[in-house]
Amino acid sequence: MSKSADIDDREEGLAFQPKFDASGLVTCVATDAATGEVLMVAHMNDEALRRTIASGEAWYFSRSRKALWRKGETSGHTQRVVEMRADCDQDAIWIRVEQSGAACHTGRCSCFYRKVDAAEGGARLSFVDAEKQFDPKAVYRK
Amino acid sequence: MSKSADIDDREEGLAFQPKFDASGLVTCVATDAATGEVLMVAHMNDEALRRTIASGEAWYFSRSRKALWRKGETSGHTQRVVEMRADCDQDAIWIRVEQSGAACHTGRCSCFYRKVDAAEGGARLSFVDAEKQFDPKAVYRK
Repeated sequence: MSKSADIDDREEGLAFQPKFDASGLVTCVATDAATGEVLMVAHMNDEALRRTIASGEAWYFSRSRKALWRKGETSGHTQRVVEMRADCDQDAIWIRVEQSGAACHTGRCSCFYRKVDAAEGGARLSFVDAEKQFDPKAVYRK
Repeated sequence: MSKSADIDDREEGLAFQPKFDASGLVTCVATDAATGEVLMVAHMNDEALRRTIASGEAWYFSRSRKALWRKGETSGHTQRVVEMRADCDQDAIWIRVEQSGAACHTGRCSCFYRKVDAAEGGARLSFVDAEKQFDPKAVYRK
């Protein structure tokens, strides 16, 4: 296929052909199916994608640990996938999930618990929706 | 700072210290402020982040074109940032935006116009919310 036919096929076709990056990963955004809140951004390799699709539970690939990882396997805070979508060029995945417990390893519902605002010299953060739902030290036995 | 103090500072502190990857980028998820729909996933470098924060309009860095890019500079389909958030380790940004026109270069409201479902041999796509809002050939004068 020519490059432009290939792009058309990927963007307008119905074949699922994820476009993995040089590390074999696609970006995955998980949002709360009930509230629309973005819970986390993580990565999936081919195997994580396959397992997520087959099981209906979110699996990821940890870049820091270089390991496949079922969300909640340590914490119990699993994600049931309500819907999965692929973006135009198929290098990003969006899953709407039912989150049990809380998504963030810090104990918050979402990883996005700080707002960024313009400030003198650049930007500053402030906490928002930042109540801890669990004690990470207890859950991860640090 | 020790590694663990550094992680604590990044995760629990209020200094904005984006963690850029080897290419100098963070991942940015843009959602529709009104509907919660994920519109697109793109990347920002330091300059794109600065301009977005200072102007309240979304700027990105195009990996394919290796260029800073104000969303909508060609199409007119700009994004006004209602809120910006940083995630726990500050390598991902979430912006809630007011999208003028449509977010996707294919003409759809969102880049995520195809659903992924389990199927014989893996997965298949189907269109959902895939009506084109504009004609990309006309807008981008291809």
